Amino acid sequence: MSHTSSDKKLLARVRRLKGQLEAVERALESEAPCGEILNLVASVRGAVNGLTVELIEDHIREHVSNPETDSDKARGQGAGDLIQVIRTYLK
Amino acid sequence: MSHTSSDKKLLARVRRLKGQLEAVERALESEAPCGEILNLVASVRGAVNGLTVELIEDHIREHVSNPETDSDKARGQGAGDLIQVIRTYLK
Amino acid sequence: MSHTSSDKKLLARVRRLKGQLEAVERALESEAPCGEILNLVASVRGAVNGLTVELIEDHIREHVSNPETDSDKARGQGAGDLIQVIRTYLK
Amino acid sequence: MSHTSSDKKLLARVRRLKGQLEAVERALESEAPCGEILNLVASVRGAVNGLTVELIEDHIREHVSNPETDSDKARGQGAGDLIQVIRTYLK
Repeated sequence: MSHTSSDKKLLARVRRLKGQLEAVERALESEAPCGEILNLVASVRGAVNGLTVELIEDHIREHVSNPETDSDKARGQGAGDLIQVIRTYLK
Repeated sequence: MSHTSSDKKLLARVRRLKGQLEAVERALESEAPCGEILNLVASVRGAVNGLTVELIEDHIREHVSNPETDSDKARGQGAGDLIQVIRTYLK
Repeated sequence: MSHTSSDKKLLARVRRLKGQLEAVERALESEAPCGEILNLVASVRGAVNGLTVELIEDHIREHVSNPETDSDKARGQGAGDLIQVIRTYLK
Repeated sequence: MSHTSSDKKLLARVRRLKGQLEAVERALESEAPCGEILNLVASVRGAVNGLTVELIEDHIREHVSNPETDSDKARGQGAGDLIQVIRTYLK
């Protein structure tokens, strides 16, 4: 994924996710109530979905078509619509 | 979640998940190809779903009804069907 | 599923879903733009998730434990927490 | 979605889905057991996911880049990887 600018953003997301996972680990070790642990894991799921959407969006922009810069307007529009769809389905 | 026996299993899952997340971190740092990173994140997603199913199942057995031990056979059957449904929908 | 009161509600949901699916059918027949069709299908997905959550919730109340009426308060609480978790994960 | 050849395929999928939904309707009307209805709805969910993946794939090929025919080999490769990722995440 040779697009350094977005890598920093993605790395920050992954490190936040690790922090959320460590919170789940502490909750299990301290025998927190099920509901609390399930809520923590639900937020991990949400964060993984967010990471997924951002990775796919970066892939589209870097390796297929960037809606903002593609010289072919129709293809750029198609890529823009696709990014919207990915956000709808994977959020 | 005062069920120590299953906690060890869950803690092991969470630690494996952290390892998978660290693999994503390394792949981003080494600018691995998008496809490789997306595959790593897909496996993290699968692991989070597996963790979720196991947490919900433990909650049902510990705090609602254990299909194997509930004296009320109908309720135990209902809990057993529920566990199957959860596995179908959240795997 | 011998709980007539909730069946009417579920049947109404299924019939609305059929209407949404017929809208997708018409959009395909009239060669509507991809984005429009994908949005229609996204709403079908949402409706199917809603139907799923309601079915599971009815199953818990009818065949496992009803949080509002279970004489065993702890089990009723466990069932109530479970219903919240199902809504979080399957909405 | 001006791609008649794939429309027929998609219309066939939508009509099969309607049939599956009518099976859920009949099961509710005949008060079938929860587990049976939940299994029918699980298959509807799977069919909706399949329809979604096919719609997105058609959109990529028709409006962004067709891996098999794009004169820009790198972009075609990027589109092909993207289609694989969509199948992984939305199946």
